[in-house]
Amino acid sequence: MGTKAGQYIEAHRASFIEELSAWLRIPSISTDASYAENVKEAATYISERLEEAGAEKVAIVPTAGHPVVYAHALSSRAQAPHVVVYGHYDVQPATPLDLWTSPPFEPAIRNGRLYARGACDDKGQAYMYVKALAYLRATYGDALPVHLHFILEGEEEIGSPNLLPFLEKERDTLKNPDAVLISDTAMLDAQTPSITIGVRGICYVEMTLRGPARDLHSGEYGGAVHNPIHVLCELIAGLKDAEGRITVPNFYDAVRSLSDSERQAIRDIPFDEDSWKAPLELKALHGEKGYSTLERIGARPALDVNGIWGGYIQKGAKTVLPAEAHAKLSLRLVPDQQGDVVAKQVMAYLQKHTPPTMKISFRPAHSANPSWLTTDSVAYRTAEAAIAAVWGKKPIPLRCGGSIPVVAQIANVLHTPPVLMGFGLPEDGIHAPNESFSVAHFLRGIETIIDFCERLPLLVTSHA
Amino acid sequence: MGTKAGQYIEAHRASFIEELSAWLRIPSISTDASYAENVKEAATYISERLEEAGAEKVAIVPTAGHPVVYAHALSSRAQAPHVVVYGHYDVQPATPLDLWTSPPFEPAIRNGRLYARGACDDKGQAYMYVKALAYLRATYGDALPVHLHFILEGEEEIGSPNLLPFLEKERDTLKNPDAVLISDTAMLDAQTPSITIGVRGICYVEMTLRGPARDLHSGEYGGAVHNPIHVLCELIAGLKDAEGRITVPNFYDAVRSLSDSERQAIRDIPFDEDSWKAPLELKALHGEKGYSTLERIGARPALDVNGIWGGYIQKGAKTVLPAEAHAKLSLRLVPDQQGDVVAKQVMAYLQKHTPPTMKISFRPAHSANPSWLTTDSVAYRTAEAAIAAVWGKKPIPLRCGGSIPVVAQIANVLHTPPVLMGFGLPEDGIHAPNESFSVAHFLRGIETIIDFCERLPLLVTSHA
Repeated sequence: MGTKAGQYIEAHRASFIEELSAWLRIPSISTDASYAENVKEAATYISERLEEAGAEKVAIVPTAGHPVVYAHALSSRAQAPHVVVYGHYDVQPATPLDLWTSPPFEPAIRNGRLYARGACDDKGQAYMYVKALAYLRATYGDALPVHLHFILEGEEEIGSPNLLPFLEKERDTLKNPDAVLISDTAMLDAQTPSITIGVRGICYVEMTLRGPARDLHSGEYGGAVHNPIHVLCELIAGLKDAEGRITVPNFYDAVRSLSDSERQAIRDIPFDEDSWKAPLELKALHGEKGYSTLERIGARPALDVNGIWGGYIQKGAKTVLPAEAHAKLSLRLVPDQQGDVVAKQVMAYLQKHTPPTMKISFRPAHSANPSWLTTDSVAYRTAEAAIAAVWGKKPIPLRCGGSIPVVAQIANVLHTPPVLMGFGLPEDGIHAPNESFSVAHFLRGIETIIDFCERLPLLVTSHA
Repeated sequence: MGTKAGQYIEAHRASFIEELSAWLRIPSISTDASYAENVKEAATYISERLEEAGAEKVAIVPTAGHPVVYAHALSSRAQAPHVVVYGHYDVQPATPLDLWTSPPFEPAIRNGRLYARGACDDKGQAYMYVKALAYLRATYGDALPVHLHFILEGEEEIGSPNLLPFLEKERDTLKNPDAVLISDTAMLDAQTPSITIGVRGICYVEMTLRGPARDLHSGEYGGAVHNPIHVLCELIAGLKDAEGRITVPNFYDAVRSLSDSERQAIRDIPFDEDSWKAPLELKALHGEKGYSTLERIGARPALDVNGIWGGYIQKGAKTVLPAEAHAKLSLRLVPDQQGDVVAKQVMAYLQKHTPPTMKISFRPAHSANPSWLTTDSVAYRTAEAAIAAVWGKKPIPLRCGGSIPVVAQIANVLHTPPVLMGFGLPEDGIHAPNESFSVAHFLRGIETIIDFCERLPLLVTSHA
């Protein structure tokens, strides 16, 4: 970090981490209504930090759900390029709590990593932009190299149900920016800086099977009354065939095939499956026949059971034939599958295969569309150059398995495909106990964003 | 209740119910160690009531688990027959609590039924014997018509793991009694007094599947890492075939076939499937092909999932690919299947079908052997006559689907097959929320036990 920006960051390192830690202490779990006040508190906290960093017109914009933090840092140079930054300040639930080494909402540093729920996903990565702005204001004052527009939402982890109306309302202010930056993804590994060029869509379905009107004694009724847990297991088992393909009719109809050159590009990624697999302590991987691990994760759809419960699940033995059984399922989608279409296909399939002994019902599910992004844009090339400058290596294009619903929404509404410049690592354990973020990546991410903002005007100009 | 016993019972009705209710208020849940003190308290309470009723040598006998309450009420008439009474004072867990109309441990009477966990299973039925003794002492003083021996255990709901050593130690005192009475079963319906001649065995297995070393983000890994919940569902679904038969190899080898006359006897039972099914609000029943409902429940083995859990099971959506998934399974067995043999068969089958992506482990399971009991004994004929006298109808012989592990143990150790003279009803909802016991059945049960004790000496004598 011999650059001016690098020296600034090193000098402020302790306060940057302390400010981020204070944000991480707020349990802004968006999926659980009992944390709604904490979500608000997290929005207030970050809007105050944005103001301190030199943003103007910082607003906490109400939505039908959790608010959007919306801010601008405009340059006195009218011709400066416009950069829209998207991030999110909500986090996943922290359960199971007993698996955390230090409590999820008491940030702790161990071995150069900051441990907390949200450390990487996405408070840590969103906060890099706030500190990049602080540097740019300190260095350029009013004459920022770019106009910055911040959209920090509080509902990413529940599928961004209220962001689209917000974007549509702000379309005239925000449309056709020179770049949209999102840091909510991971690099392939610590040696391989990456820009994510694909995110999968998602469709989340919660299902309940109801059998007898009340819990029954499994001795008195077992053998003569259909068990909802058993039927649930049969339905779930039936969702995939022996080759790992999803059995829902028409499910693959809209899946875009990989071209030979796309498959080659994926093979060219320096992906070491053994070291990727090592921390999982798995004897074997498993997935759709005929595809590599990177293809299975990035370029093929997938189905996972995210939760299942029914009957007696506490300590000891209870001989119950339960009245109900439940599961949460999610499907990861790839272009050109559509979340709402797949949700209907899956529910229709489950309904059709439910035996006459049971009733099945579904809870309103969230869904989001997948995106594959262009590498052929000034914004992409600027990010590539900024990363190469700061990390010493040109980033690889990478398809990521996760879903960022807003990617497709932003591409559509703002007419600019986002650049997914993520600094996380697979071992960060997002969504899992002991989530963490490398302090070095946090600091180098800030430097990369600063470089991007300083470099973009040159490339935009040369391009124009 | 025109008899002397009937008048006595009617006169003491209020205090009988109050005493039983006080016992029901103690949450003696044997499966959960956090209730161990309550289990002790329930033992103390019933031993005090036994002393008041006129039992001698009342002891709370420690075991490796919860204690046995052991008492005797000997007659001055040395030639009086010996009757061993078995009951249990522990109860099932009361979850899910929110489905109870009145709290499980606050007994309440509605429409002639006493509602509480344990009201029928088995505190209510065990308490009938205490009050029968009180009448016999009040009426006969030292010259009881029978010698009574009470064994009330605190571990029936967890498979009676420590009763066998107790019985073996007391074998010389108790062996070859003229009758063993157990009231821990139900009548076919309110119009059909019944004596249970079969109880199924049980084998309870808790299993855990472990996949990746930690919970993973289902976007980042989904499609390339095997999901333990999905594998668990496949294993469970695979345990039965399309005809409802259990697929575990050799599982049916030891199953005794029903003879034509046994099948005819079952067809002769006045069982109204429609009205039995009505409270369950089921469109259809389901079970092993080729067998009637009564056969499926009483004379064929069954497999039920009693509980399943894994991943995120709280409100909202979490996109986790969990490290573990769990299930509790139980199998109901019929002669001549053996609980420990079946447990090994099932675990071997599950182990064999676990894919190389997973590790499976099992928790020590309880098991118990099934019993089919004779109707050709003085004790059975005495019970038949006592029931006919009090209920106005000869009882039918009935095979019950539940398991009372001690039945096989008593038959073996004491050399006397028990008579299962139960006064519950299917609608009592044992093991379920809103368990209840008909007050009329409770009172008439006491009268029946008194009749049995007065009648047995006559038949034993005439038999000898």
